[in-house]
Amino acid sequence: MAKRNSSELLIQDLTEILPARNILTSLEDRDIYSRDKSNLPNKAADAVVFVENIEQVQNIVKLARGRGIPVICRGAGTNVVGACTVEGCGGIVMDFSKMNKILEINAENSTVRVQPGVVVGELQKQVEALGLYYPPDPSALAISTIGGSIAQSSAGARTFKYGSTKDYVLGLVVVTADGEILRTGSSTVKNATGYNLGSIFIGSEGTLGIVVEAVLKLIPKPESKKVMLAYFDTVRNAVKAVNTIIEKRILPATIDFMDKNAVNTAEKYSPSGMLCDKEALLVIEIDGCENSLENTRKVTVDVLEKCGACAIRCSGSDEEYEKIWAARRSSMTACAQLRDHVTTDDVIVPRDKLARLVEGIQKICTKYKLISCLIGHIGDGSVHPQIPIDYNDEDEYSRYKLAKKEIYDLTVSLGGLISGEHGIGSLKRDYIHKFVDANALKYMRKIKEVFDPDNILNPNKIFLPE
Amino acid sequence: MAKRNSSELLIQDLTEILPARNILTSLEDRDIYSRDKSNLPNKAADAVVFVENIEQVQNIVKLARGRGIPVICRGAGTNVVGACTVEGCGGIVMDFSKMNKILEINAENSTVRVQPGVVVGELQKQVEALGLYYPPDPSALAISTIGGSIAQSSAGARTFKYGSTKDYVLGLVVVTADGEILRTGSSTVKNATGYNLGSIFIGSEGTLGIVVEAVLKLIPKPESKKVMLAYFDTVRNAVKAVNTIIEKRILPATIDFMDKNAVNTAEKYSPSGMLCDKEALLVIEIDGCENSLENTRKVTVDVLEKCGACAIRCSGSDEEYEKIWAARRSSMTACAQLRDHVTTDDVIVPRDKLARLVEGIQKICTKYKLISCLIGHIGDGSVHPQIPIDYNDEDEYSRYKLAKKEIYDLTVSLGGLISGEHGIGSLKRDYIHKFVDANALKYMRKIKEVFDPDNILNPNKIFLPE
Repeated sequence: MAKRNSSELLIQDLTEILPARNILTSLEDRDIYSRDKSNLPNKAADAVVFVENIEQVQNIVKLARGRGIPVICRGAGTNVVGACTVEGCGGIVMDFSKMNKILEINAENSTVRVQPGVVVGELQKQVEALGLYYPPDPSALAISTIGGSIAQSSAGARTFKYGSTKDYVLGLVVVTADGEILRTGSSTVKNATGYNLGSIFIGSEGTLGIVVEAVLKLIPKPESKKVMLAYFDTVRNAVKAVNTIIEKRILPATIDFMDKNAVNTAEKYSPSGMLCDKEALLVIEIDGCENSLENTRKVTVDVLEKCGACAIRCSGSDEEYEKIWAARRSSMTACAQLRDHVTTDDVIVPRDKLARLVEGIQKICTKYKLISCLIGHIGDGSVHPQIPIDYNDEDEYSRYKLAKKEIYDLTVSLGGLISGEHGIGSLKRDYIHKFVDANALKYMRKIKEVFDPDNILNPNKIFLPE
Repeated sequence: MAKRNSSELLIQDLTEILPARNILTSLEDRDIYSRDKSNLPNKAADAVVFVENIEQVQNIVKLARGRGIPVICRGAGTNVVGACTVEGCGGIVMDFSKMNKILEINAENSTVRVQPGVVVGELQKQVEALGLYYPPDPSALAISTIGGSIAQSSAGARTFKYGSTKDYVLGLVVVTADGEILRTGSSTVKNATGYNLGSIFIGSEGTLGIVVEAVLKLIPKPESKKVMLAYFDTVRNAVKAVNTIIEKRILPATIDFMDKNAVNTAEKYSPSGMLCDKEALLVIEIDGCENSLENTRKVTVDVLEKCGACAIRCSGSDEEYEKIWAARRSSMTACAQLRDHVTTDDVIVPRDKLARLVEGIQKICTKYKLISCLIGHIGDGSVHPQIPIDYNDEDEYSRYKLAKKEIYDLTVSLGGLISGEHGIGSLKRDYIHKFVDANALKYMRKIKEVFDPDNILNPNKIFLPE
């Protein structure tokens, strides 16, 4: 028998762990599964595996560790920062789309136990049918998974009122880099029993351990909801309205934002009747019990008018509600129509610095002759500048890189952060030292060493080893 | 000059860092400041220091590390698990009561920046005057500090709706065991920029680093609130009412519980007109906008009646509201009148196991002829069995120890935890392995080694070194 190469040997060993149908080996497949929505340059994985149970995950990790091969976990690959791309060192892409079962909805305890491949939107649908609610709503929720949400510390529009993924994770089952099982938390809503290990995995982008099961907290589903569109002639007035709403003790579920370019681009792609001639649009969702909603709506409209809203529209029906949110969520897809690719970013500042951030980003993009569509969860101080670019247009790409640097410098100067909800991945790792204190970064590296001494779990994401 | 002993040398070195008035050296003082509300046996500290700024904290840590002397931080000493006691290895007690400034309330950003010695109740008063709200409300809030809340991952009655301390900490400044400064988070409400280091300090009981400043998130103050008392003839009916309230999508700020003994004891100590002949009392606070509150009250009362509440009372005035909460919060003090000492515990189970936990604890205490006053944040599944005992009564003490073990075994069997909000300290460290997975405990120890390689930060709390 001819001597086989290491790639053949790897495939052979994998088939002892998984059925052959769960292993992709063609170059095309290995390339596709090594990319994510960041569209960053990548290397094809050594193999793509579809795991079906925890034991398979353990065995693959043990195999990979033994051979020093990286393991890159993947939900739906919707992340935009290169958090599940394969880089120079190659690796096994571990896809969780077959571990997509909702294992138990416990209505009495208001908890749900899930596998990591469960799609966020599907989970929401199922628990809402029981009068329960899982609030975190990343834009890609129709396909993005809970595992990805946990890995990236995902948030969404409703974070303003309800918090983000981390606020709903009660317990985790994690496979550590040695292939062993680690359990953190439980099904209880509070926990002061030892260090909060679970929280260190949330947002660690698969670099510290592999989440193979999670218990999530649910809350009662709000009885009713309404969404309002409020248009402004200036960004400043829109930001003033946000602050006044909060001052008036109104707590909307979401206070989202789109600038003129974002509205126009969305309307071109999927028309929903938004007004295209205003500088700023606030998308405000209020929810709660039916009989208080009308009053909240009135008070909110009153604030919006006093802050200079030049047009206000409220959703009258469920269809209208869905249409408005579909338009808002499709913003990135709409922008992608303008060029080969659309970059999105995820800067966040304390809310009192918002107007300066938004206006600053617009100015920077104008200066570098870039189209920019700004959207954001403005109630959180979170802005996503979406900049469509053609990577093959060298001039445009270099202008984009300069603009990006200036946007980050502006964010630093406003006391902000480079990511509120998308993560760092490989796309932003070169900038993390600007936003994370040197001593904090030192301890992050030490924690990585503790959990993954051989650097096989999604290596080189978030930061490079020293 | 006669050779001085190490104690004298330590005091001399401390006076180079701090004014002499900030150092206590008498045996009596050193003994008092080495205890907390657990009343556990302790050793007098080598010295007690009152720090006034971050630099002093850094210098004392550097001094202590150089000499291998432990540093035990202290807020108001209200913790009940021996989390800030001094043990056999001695140490410097670092008291934060002089670092008690609210450094900045930023209403526009809904944040507050505080020193660790700020008293929780005082913070609440100040932000509420501006229409803002800091929800976490540990029972001792009139004296307990934010630093202690962060160290112990404190919660309180309002956690049911609003979450606990960890949900309100946005940024921390920490002095690490080498005396250096580490900054985590920022003033933004979301953060996906690197590992969530901040969360590992919250609840770490001063064993990983010393929090010297915190930025906390605030929310709009609820417009109005009301508290209701609902009495039941059985614990099961009370628990059923809790579940039905949640099913009906009502989200009270608190759903607290007192059993018959707890009510009777509280009434004896500070009469507030509670009914003493019922088995279970629910203390339910609802809050929100004025015009919806009356409706929520009606729906809640309706649920309570249908679940068999035999008497319901609603607070009519602010004074009545305060009186009810004063009675509930004084429960431990009331129990302490019954014996030399009162032990309190902090078990928590998934809510669907609550009735079994409460009834089980009552049975165990009856079996061991112990008085038990049960209170708890029952909406969270959290129960505090308060058991008055006389430590000098050997028979009673040994019966108490057996009962405690059985209560923990019951909690384990129901999938619960040994602490929901008090922490582990030294009181519960011998039990932690029953509630924390062996692999998780292994990584907790490794994290301790990373942050505190010389084991000088509050050593031997939560778990012993291996």
